[in-house]
Amino acid sequence: MIATIDPNRLWQSIMDIAEIAPTPEGGSCRLALTPEDAAARALFLRWCQPLGLHHEQDAIGNMFLRRPGTDATAPAVAFGSHLDTVPTGGRFDGIAGVLAGLEVIRALHHAGVPTKAPLELVNWTNEEGSRFRPAMMGSRVAAGELPLDTALATTDDNGISVARALSDTGQAGTLIPAPRDWSAWLELHIEQGPVMEATGAEIGIVVATMHARYFQLTVTGEPSHVGPTEMNRRHDSLAAAAEIVLAVERIALAAEPFGRASTSWIENIPNARGNVPHITRLHCDVRHNKAGEAIAMETSLRRTLSDIAARRGVRIDVDPYATFGPIAFDTKLGALLRAKAADRQLPTRDMIAAAGHDSVLMAPLVPSAMLFVPSVGGITHNPKEYSTKEQIAHGAQVLLDTVLELATA
Amino acid sequence: MIATIDPNRLWQSIMDIAEIAPTPEGGSCRLALTPEDAAARALFLRWCQPLGLHHEQDAIGNMFLRRPGTDATAPAVAFGSHLDTVPTGGRFDGIAGVLAGLEVIRALHHAGVPTKAPLELVNWTNEEGSRFRPAMMGSRVAAGELPLDTALATTDDNGISVARALSDTGQAGTLIPAPRDWSAWLELHIEQGPVMEATGAEIGIVVATMHARYFQLTVTGEPSHVGPTEMNRRHDSLAAAAEIVLAVERIALAAEPFGRASTSWIENIPNARGNVPHITRLHCDVRHNKAGEAIAMETSLRRTLSDIAARRGVRIDVDPYATFGPIAFDTKLGALLRAKAADRQLPTRDMIAAAGHDSVLMAPLVPSAMLFVPSVGGITHNPKEYSTKEQIAHGAQVLLDTVLELATA
Repeated sequence: MIATIDPNRLWQSIMDIAEIAPTPEGGSCRLALTPEDAAARALFLRWCQPLGLHHEQDAIGNMFLRRPGTDATAPAVAFGSHLDTVPTGGRFDGIAGVLAGLEVIRALHHAGVPTKAPLELVNWTNEEGSRFRPAMMGSRVAAGELPLDTALATTDDNGISVARALSDTGQAGTLIPAPRDWSAWLELHIEQGPVMEATGAEIGIVVATMHARYFQLTVTGEPSHVGPTEMNRRHDSLAAAAEIVLAVERIALAAEPFGRASTSWIENIPNARGNVPHITRLHCDVRHNKAGEAIAMETSLRRTLSDIAARRGVRIDVDPYATFGPIAFDTKLGALLRAKAADRQLPTRDMIAAAGHDSVLMAPLVPSAMLFVPSVGGITHNPKEYSTKEQIAHGAQVLLDTVLELATA
Repeated sequence: MIATIDPNRLWQSIMDIAEIAPTPEGGSCRLALTPEDAAARALFLRWCQPLGLHHEQDAIGNMFLRRPGTDATAPAVAFGSHLDTVPTGGRFDGIAGVLAGLEVIRALHHAGVPTKAPLELVNWTNEEGSRFRPAMMGSRVAAGELPLDTALATTDDNGISVARALSDTGQAGTLIPAPRDWSAWLELHIEQGPVMEATGAEIGIVVATMHARYFQLTVTGEPSHVGPTEMNRRHDSLAAAAEIVLAVERIALAAEPFGRASTSWIENIPNARGNVPHITRLHCDVRHNKAGEAIAMETSLRRTLSDIAARRGVRIDVDPYATFGPIAFDTKLGALLRAKAADRQLPTRDMIAAAGHDSVLMAPLVPSAMLFVPSVGGITHNPKEYSTKEQIAHGAQVLLDTVLELATA
């Protein structure tokens, strides 16, 4: 059997959903479980409706849209990604994966092509983790890596809990989050880097992910006055934090080209003009494609933290609250993706994902694979994030061809 | 004529007002024009009532409590300080000056001692500048250094304007802020440093202030992803800001012992886990007892900012929004304070104020002076801030003796 995706229909859906909470620079801002995220979910459901999909939603808000197969007993072939964005979101990160999955089902529906196995299209809750930590929250809970209660009790920077946000946006489903009966999990995603564009690859076969380690650090100094308090009598938590930010960056530079490390979030107390800050919190991560190297980066960071704490007379507490990877994706699924790309004359390249993805959580539970499409200029988490209509269409076609083979075999 | 202050009554008032918005560690948090600040002002007015003082308040909320003199045409002798605190406020900064002034009037009232010139006790609005910048807002407006409209339009970090806060707390008076008809201005304040304690001085004669220069800096980078974006492709505004924080500190260390520089406030955008920050704002100040040195510190900082901007490919905008000092206080008033302290066998020491004070704004308008009382351990802007009952009583007595001489001469 064969079916062909419609590049224009797929592109138009991506452009249409981007009109929900657009940002001036051309991106979208739909943080997880905001009214904007709920509006995108509602539009997605409206698109699913004429396709006769069965909608289920779990207590963490993960959405499952099921197309029945001809064999009611066969496990489903599942695919999708996430609709939430970071604050400086583009139009493609996550969204391309959900809507490419939608296009797979639309193409089959309009061509009247049945599959033996059911298909399940998924939108995972809070993949980005911008508002509620940790990232990949919905898939973590579904995979049993994060207790539902812990996730529900997590609060954003305004003290609003996940439970409250789910309820306020009508996204709390009735299913208990759990692994589902799937034979395979597939996720299309933009590369978020410049490698495919630079090497001419059209389809990235993601063979593995980096290992990432997330920390929250709390620096505790001593309140004092920006004027009379002499420099040598200060225990300035922000100055200590500044050293940490640069140490994190240095550790990443020393681990190039496969190491990354970042400080993305800061809270400073009392954050008042006139006061030498006395509590500063940082969110950092270190990552590397070798787990041992990522751990060595952490060790190096912790050593630096001890030095800073001793020298400045501040306390530094480390809360290493989450990790992901390293994950090796299913080699048979990778080979199938590679073969389907070759059938379409699309050059491939094996890739290692540096970002976290929901697929990382699925990989231990079900044969899983990811495919990348190129990102123009490698720009991501930025309103300038871009992939062309053709690049996305190519990826969606390879996804469709792979799904069809898996679901009819 | 002679009158004696009551150390216990003064101490009790300081302890009583500290019960408004107390913090767990023993301090108080009464940011300018909050309900807590308004409650402290109300208690202060209740204390003034039995003393027969005439209350006037101006449109920026400055409070003037007038005790008539026997000569209705004589200009007033004025004194006071501020009741607002920083978020990590102690019990003494500002408050000791207002309540020592109250005790001066109480002592005269209960002793039945009239003065020829009227006395005016002042509580200035928003001296700290923690919530609304700039610091010394009320006295700046009264001195014509800051237009009233500009001050009223200033917003806090939650977008609430000074005008709204004045109105919500019932603190917007009807007087047009303007210099008043005073013959002298005096302010008692805690030292906020360790020098007097270390040298055994009981009364600090503040002969001058440092020169301080306040900046807001905005670093603009480029949004990207903490995972896939390689280190060398990032334009991380927070990492650039970290360099700035440490540069500010280095510049101060190089200017010791008379130089200070601080970064007290930071805002980071989008401040989301998963995003390399792309806009970071900092509030910094540099100060030195020589204006030329403070300007040289600024020049040095600006040079470093250019280096950082060029090296990291970020933009750094500088908004140098306020300065204060250097001010030399009135030498005759200083000599009078010194003589009155000597009369009471209290050892004095000439001091230079490193912090901003409302007196800085009064000095160009009216003969002005400040006296310091010691700070135990030099700790300030900290709930552990402390001066003893005796130290404050000594200061208040010198203030009373000086006021009496000025107002009866």
